[in-house]
Amino acid sequence: MAIQQKLSLMIPGPTPVPEKVLEALSRHPIGHRSKEFQDLIESTTKNLQWLHQTQNDVLTITGSGTAAMEAGIISTLNKGDKVICGENGKFGERWVKVAKEFGLEVIKIDSEWGTPLNPEEFKKVLEEDKEKEIKAVILTHSETSTGVINDLETISSYIRKHSRALSIVDCVTSLGACNVPVDEWELDIVASGSQKGYMIPPGLSFVAVSKKAWDAAKQSNLPKFYLNLNSYRKSLENNSNPYTPAVNLVFALEESLKMMREEGLETIFLRHNRHKLAISNAVKALNLKLYADEKYLSPSITAVDTEEIDAEELRKKIKNKYDILLAGGQDHLKSKIFRVGHLGYINDRDIITVISAISSTLLEMGKITSQQAGEALIIASKYLNAN
Amino acid sequence: MAIQQKLSLMIPGPTPVPEKVLEALSRHPIGHRSKEFQDLIESTTKNLQWLHQTQNDVLTITGSGTAAMEAGIISTLNKGDKVICGENGKFGERWVKVAKEFGLEVIKIDSEWGTPLNPEEFKKVLEEDKEKEIKAVILTHSETSTGVINDLETISSYIRKHSRALSIVDCVTSLGACNVPVDEWELDIVASGSQKGYMIPPGLSFVAVSKKAWDAAKQSNLPKFYLNLNSYRKSLENNSNPYTPAVNLVFALEESLKMMREEGLETIFLRHNRHKLAISNAVKALNLKLYADEKYLSPSITAVDTEEIDAEELRKKIKNKYDILLAGGQDHLKSKIFRVGHLGYINDRDIITVISAISSTLLEMGKITSQQAGEALIIASKYLNAN
Repeated sequence: MAIQQKLSLMIPGPTPVPEKVLEALSRHPIGHRSKEFQDLIESTTKNLQWLHQTQNDVLTITGSGTAAMEAGIISTLNKGDKVICGENGKFGERWVKVAKEFGLEVIKIDSEWGTPLNPEEFKKVLEEDKEKEIKAVILTHSETSTGVINDLETISSYIRKHSRALSIVDCVTSLGACNVPVDEWELDIVASGSQKGYMIPPGLSFVAVSKKAWDAAKQSNLPKFYLNLNSYRKSLENNSNPYTPAVNLVFALEESLKMMREEGLETIFLRHNRHKLAISNAVKALNLKLYADEKYLSPSITAVDTEEIDAEELRKKIKNKYDILLAGGQDHLKSKIFRVGHLGYINDRDIITVISAISSTLLEMGKITSQQAGEALIIASKYLNAN
Repeated sequence: MAIQQKLSLMIPGPTPVPEKVLEALSRHPIGHRSKEFQDLIESTTKNLQWLHQTQNDVLTITGSGTAAMEAGIISTLNKGDKVICGENGKFGERWVKVAKEFGLEVIKIDSEWGTPLNPEEFKKVLEEDKEKEIKAVILTHSETSTGVINDLETISSYIRKHSRALSIVDCVTSLGACNVPVDEWELDIVASGSQKGYMIPPGLSFVAVSKKAWDAAKQSNLPKFYLNLNSYRKSLENNSNPYTPAVNLVFALEESLKMMREEGLETIFLRHNRHKLAISNAVKALNLKLYADEKYLSPSITAVDTEEIDAEELRKKIKNKYDILLAGGQDHLKSKIFRVGHLGYINDRDIITVISAISSTLLEMGKITSQQAGEALIIASKYLNAN
């Protein structure tokens, strides 16, 4: 098995991991019931609250982002509860499946893949719910499958007005990439995953839980054990975990959160925004189209519509020649789009590198002129130097 | 936060991790949908089958051993199903809780902590079940909380005779420590965890699933998503995972399984047996008692009854002075017993070290004579040299 040792990961996760974090990861494990580990949980929890801009509990689960979202849903709701699910991509679809699996009654608000959810549709359904039968609104902030960011700020304001419904939000590829002020927007459940903006390998996921969500959790009757957030909350009071956590990933988390605090939230968000603008504008100069509505581009992933070019062929050429891994399209988008991840530990060099690799490959394929390749770089530089 | 850098872990998990495995852990992550990762899944799956002595599917879940056991239970059973739960310790208790949470009807077969489950009780209940209403027998092979190993070979033979019931077995601290021939004993669900005999940090767990269990899984109506084994099976056909797995822990797994194959199953089992005999006989020479029935000592953990000595005090002295972490007693056993983990990456030196540390501390406390300390070492050496 040949693991490529100079691989550049530009997929929406796993994202690149800093050396310091890998070093922390490879420390000898310690006991998960020890004072040393409790201290670690205490400090990482504080830093997680900082990252989430919240005073709410932020729980760490050993599992994927899907585990975190499922935990949020099944720990707060009851069988037969009416919920709104926003669906405009593969992850939105997944949360509908989870909700249905657990016997929730789903009101779907969808929009075509590549377009954002319309907040006014949420407003309408929530306003019409005079009996307050809707117990939660489940949606995805940054839709990884399409590169669209949904207007969570506006949608969450309508959920607040409804007052009864909880917001349960997949922020897996938005947290740590753009502003997600959990307290300000009064988000009840916010799920995220380690292999994304956190800059650590996959294996941990996080759930921020509001007081309102904890109140709902007291009544929740859906069956659960490993993913029962109440157990995690109880253990957290003692800076501990109900089940053996991925100790080494917590070492890595401590290190990466320190790096994030050093960089600062605002700087992190500006960096992601700069990279988003550089890539999205550069690909347009290369005869490629943006798959997502340009007013709603995700800060962490750009989906590129290759039109008559086979996106998988392009993606494979770039992997084989330059060892840059891009993501393909999922489901019906396979071969139609490729996706560039620019999430987490990504610097300006990574951005001009991926643009050069795309340009170079398109040049070889005879799809663009050298002038276009040059223009793409000029445009990218302009955005990279903008702030 | 001061992480002790020369810590010796002698708890039942996390267990010590070889340098090679830590090095693998700290590699830069790769894409979990890449060919390279599929190759890794293919090779680790084959080696997992070797470790389990089975042709059955062995699935890898990102989560703890509890997640693996829950997955086995909820993926194969139906609401209201009658199950036998064997309970003679904290983990046995936990599986009763999981079963009840999901609405199963539990027939409990228990025995006092420190004593093994009586196989004849299983035989009786299974034989009396003429209507074949019992759908599963859920039990723990090596009970980590008490250091008792249950007679799984005999119990599983009675389950086979019943023919309808599945065996769902927590082998978390037995797999990779003593013989668990999954195919020979026709075990249907076998759960285990990475931070044990596997010699890698916590974060992965494993479930071996028989054909009979898959047949049952087709009918299963308990709600589940992240822990639905059917999804893992479907993905495994393509050497993949349904959700982003802990990629770096899979790197570590590949390396540790290679080491295990090099050592060989028989040699690994003999090593654990030798260590078990050395420790258990040495502590008896030190005026201490074995908490578990001596005919049913776990291969991986020895629970020591300290009688009039405060076990927590002893444990803390050993930690502070020698930086050896032992496990305390759980629940009502707190301060009454301590537990020595001798599971996974443990060599003969670790065994005489822990015996010396216990002896030395008891000498300082004036609880034993120097002659007893010497005798403990002689006895340990005798067993360490036995094979």
